[in-house]
Amino acid sequence: MIEGIAASSGIAIAKAYQLVTPELTYETKPIDDPDSEIKRLDEALAASKQELEKIKDHTKEEMGDEQAEIFSAHLLVLDDPELIGPIKDKITGDHVMAEAALEETTNTFIDMFNNMDNAYMRERAADIQDVTKRVLAHLLGVTFPDPALIDEEVIIIAGDLTPSDTAQLNRQFVQGFATDTGGRTSHSAIMARSMEIPAVVGTKEVTSSVQQNDIVIVDGLEGNVVVRPSEADLDAYRKKQAKFEEQKQEWAKLKDEPTMTADNNQVELAANIGNPQDVDGVIDNGGEGIGLYRTEFLYMGKSQLPTEKEQYDAYKSVLEKMGDRPVVVRTLDIGGDKELDYLDLPDELNPFLGFRAIRFCLENEGIFRTQLRALLRASVYGNLKIMFPMIATLDEFRQAKAIFSDEKQNLTKEGTDVADDIDVGIMVEIPSTAVTAPQFAKEVDFFSIGTNDLIQYTMAADRMNERVSYLYQPYHPAILTLVKNVIDAAHNENKWVGMCGEMAGDTIAIPALLGLGLDEFSMSATSILPARTQIRGLSKETMASFNEKLLAMNTTDEVIEFINEKTV
Amino acid sequence: MIEGIAASSGIAIAKAYQLVTPELTYETKPIDDPDSEIKRLDEALAASKQELEKIKDHTKEEMGDEQAEIFSAHLLVLDDPELIGPIKDKITGDHVMAEAALEETTNTFIDMFNNMDNAYMRERAADIQDVTKRVLAHLLGVTFPDPALIDEEVIIIAGDLTPSDTAQLNRQFVQGFATDTGGRTSHSAIMARSMEIPAVVGTKEVTSSVQQNDIVIVDGLEGNVVVRPSEADLDAYRKKQAKFEEQKQEWAKLKDEPTMTADNNQVELAANIGNPQDVDGVIDNGGEGIGLYRTEFLYMGKSQLPTEKEQYDAYKSVLEKMGDRPVVVRTLDIGGDKELDYLDLPDELNPFLGFRAIRFCLENEGIFRTQLRALLRASVYGNLKIMFPMIATLDEFRQAKAIFSDEKQNLTKEGTDVADDIDVGIMVEIPSTAVTAPQFAKEVDFFSIGTNDLIQYTMAADRMNERVSYLYQPYHPAILTLVKNVIDAAHNENKWVGMCGEMAGDTIAIPALLGLGLDEFSMSATSILPARTQIRGLSKETMASFNEKLLAMNTTDEVIEFINEKTV
Repeated sequence: MIEGIAASSGIAIAKAYQLVTPELTYETKPIDDPDSEIKRLDEALAASKQELEKIKDHTKEEMGDEQAEIFSAHLLVLDDPELIGPIKDKITGDHVMAEAALEETTNTFIDMFNNMDNAYMRERAADIQDVTKRVLAHLLGVTFPDPALIDEEVIIIAGDLTPSDTAQLNRQFVQGFATDTGGRTSHSAIMARSMEIPAVVGTKEVTSSVQQNDIVIVDGLEGNVVVRPSEADLDAYRKKQAKFEEQKQEWAKLKDEPTMTADNNQVELAANIGNPQDVDGVIDNGGEGIGLYRTEFLYMGKSQLPTEKEQYDAYKSVLEKMGDRPVVVRTLDIGGDKELDYLDLPDELNPFLGFRAIRFCLENEGIFRTQLRALLRASVYGNLKIMFPMIATLDEFRQAKAIFSDEKQNLTKEGTDVADDIDVGIMVEIPSTAVTAPQFAKEVDFFSIGTNDLIQYTMAADRMNERVSYLYQPYHPAILTLVKNVIDAAHNENKWVGMCGEMAGDTIAIPALLGLGLDEFSMSATSILPARTQIRGLSKETMASFNEKLLAMNTTDEVIEFINEKTV
Repeated sequence: MIEGIAASSGIAIAKAYQLVTPELTYETKPIDDPDSEIKRLDEALAASKQELEKIKDHTKEEMGDEQAEIFSAHLLVLDDPELIGPIKDKITGDHVMAEAALEETTNTFIDMFNNMDNAYMRERAADIQDVTKRVLAHLLGVTFPDPALIDEEVIIIAGDLTPSDTAQLNRQFVQGFATDTGGRTSHSAIMARSMEIPAVVGTKEVTSSVQQNDIVIVDGLEGNVVVRPSEADLDAYRKKQAKFEEQKQEWAKLKDEPTMTADNNQVELAANIGNPQDVDGVIDNGGEGIGLYRTEFLYMGKSQLPTEKEQYDAYKSVLEKMGDRPVVVRTLDIGGDKELDYLDLPDELNPFLGFRAIRFCLENEGIFRTQLRALLRASVYGNLKIMFPMIATLDEFRQAKAIFSDEKQNLTKEGTDVADDIDVGIMVEIPSTAVTAPQFAKEVDFFSIGTNDLIQYTMAADRMNERVSYLYQPYHPAILTLVKNVIDAAHNENKWVGMCGEMAGDTIAIPALLGLGLDEFSMSATSILPARTQIRGLSKETMASFNEKLLAMNTTDEVIEFINEKTV
């Protein structure tokens, strides 16, 4: 049994699928028979081609034409006589093995294209690199993981899952995740919760302890992974799985109930989503709205920016499905740890303190305007609210709002219908904004507190850095004080405050946030029903009476102990 | 004329000294005469040896035996027959030119040593690397800059100055700095102010526009660099220089005066220092104390940790020179952008949000205890106060304080005299600490606000990153609000508050800080007399009457405009 961090609840039992790139090394040997090397190369090329066709078809079906284009580009590389010719010449002429001829030739092209200092050519270099790896894997007889090709129930085992890995996963068959690194707020954890599958992250060793096709149990309730379980283990975990299903059915009874506290105060429970297909899960789990629609996934895993039309379609689909229920869309939050290959952002020494989100959008107004136009055009299909990420100063909000108003006017002039009552708010995730919330409250329509970043900036600790992640303390009195400052400032101006960080769905944080006066809690869809259950047992008045005491506490441990004591 | 950022005031006129590593590339050519190549190699070895002897002697004299040891190690490399033999064999055997034989042979050793994964061997690899560069420079006939060997008046021209560059500078001859990168809070700017020489940073182009030995004027008042000035330029700037000297003499009259406001309130003006030799400048400039002694320079530019004795000597020397005047020593702040080669700290994705300062010290208690013992032993020689950097939680302060108390007790038990009244405080440079200052104020003896970091965390913007440095806004209402929170919390508990970031010496910030109630302003020594002059013209009561208005302002521009208007 391997211990890790429980990142998404539930129990999964299935075969392991190792999402680890195999080692593609080989020993260089002299060859006697160039013809047989050329034959090996041709076979590897054919196998790669067949595989890529399959992936391309699958991607097209699941994610649309544009995402599938990447694989069309790969197929073109395989068919390029100007690349394949020189490889074969090298085998025949220099008597080197197919692996070496392939690598040496493609490296020449990759270097050449990279040196052209042109985004398009660098993309070509990346395509050749990807294809070379695939062909090399076939030559060496090792399997290259292709998440898109999974066609049976599996548990994904990985070092960490990147956004582009998860974009390619065939969700139908993935039963759970187990990873070496990451915490509750890492991308893989968030994805697992949105896919409603169990996940255990931060195990440190799961990739090295698990073999391809081993049977694995992921216990997302306790944070354990059982490798090659005994019959007794399987039995015990199947029982636990059944019990969890029962519990879920109990929760499901509250699906259409409002979220009321024991003393009859109502709050809103909303969900965080990354893709239109997440909306079904929100509705199934009784979400009263979408508190955070992360639009950056529209921009990821592709070779160019999404068009206004593609964005419009996505936003419209989410708004229509949600009907009257509010949908808070966050404009593009790119940069930091989220890169886009086709944008060629500069490397930064401290990307989390760098050129990202609204900072990027205000300097790349074209990209920003396209998104705002798509949102405005979609606004007539539901209850749209827009928020800007990483706002640090009122100047930034004013600039972003002015661009929004300008595009609204443009569309109206063009005769396009747009909703007239779109609320425009901001993420509060930078300390300066939490501190000056009274100033902001006069100009924004709402706040949504993004605790993942707010905590990391307030504590000056990168939550992804294991050496300092102990400082990522959601219940620290400093965080609660800033949250209170934001809520009080908003209520003074009759504005509402949501929270869309991980903290909003956390069972220890919920009582405190209720007392501080939070209006909307936005979380993973699967946390909504447990949260509603918890809130029905809590008195808002009682929790509010503890505020002064909580904010004056010395340490996070004191806060946790106090809340646990008051909420048994 | 090149424009940059005025980083240290005054006018300097001197020859340019390019501190730029020359390109050490060459074209590989076949050779006919191995003997003449061996002769070239021997000559380059001899020249390198002579140079290293000189640098070693100079370093020994200026900085002591231990720093000079690095160069002894380099000399050993030059004399190592196991390294030189194979190079010569390669020339004779493979008929390659001396440059290539040198590089190929040393690269083999460097790779081998680096792969041993042992700190000692990696150091050897670094030594061989350094020596190879030097010998290669002689073979190619290019000059390798050696800041330690400067023996005439020069202006240093560099991309940026690293702490180890400045540690080697022969201060006697350096008249000014001009750099391509950096801002007012970068290391080169801080060094220039502590050396009391003019500096212009962030010029983007000075290294490419200036040739070695060009005459250059550095105008640290306006932030300009004049390259190859005309006679008229020289005349004008000599006049400006004389006028600035006159102004300095005017300021000097306040050297022994207390710092009183126009309405008779007293504050303390202290200085930030990095080395014991900075103390003379503090006294000359009328410093009433040292508000920040950055001890990390004791740890830099060497091959191992400083001993307790070396530290003790440095601390004692500062305390003795300062007499009764307070000396606030900051314990080791390493990590972030400050690395120590011999410690082998892990690379981090966001070093500014990483494992640094007190976080490092609490996990490396041995290093921390050595420093605290040295401080405690030196404490009897003056008025010592100790502060811990990067405190984010009260838990951290309590841990650090407990280690301090433990070492104090140990020394007392051993019969060593230590002062009994050493104040122990913290840097306030992390938003969480500024927000929870009321909790801290009950347990610390004083606060010192470190604005350079506090601003960058509060605004979530890396001040070294040019794309977001516009968000480094010292006068932002959020910063002023946090500063006020810290001061009020301290005064409620009868504790004092200092500020040791760049902001404390800033002419726009000073009136605001006075009104907010700051007790101690710690700045570059050269800013003290201008600040004293400014403060004598300001009323603390009047400034305090603006507090509410200032904190409620919307933007940094509003704050600047208001202060300018009220202090004409």
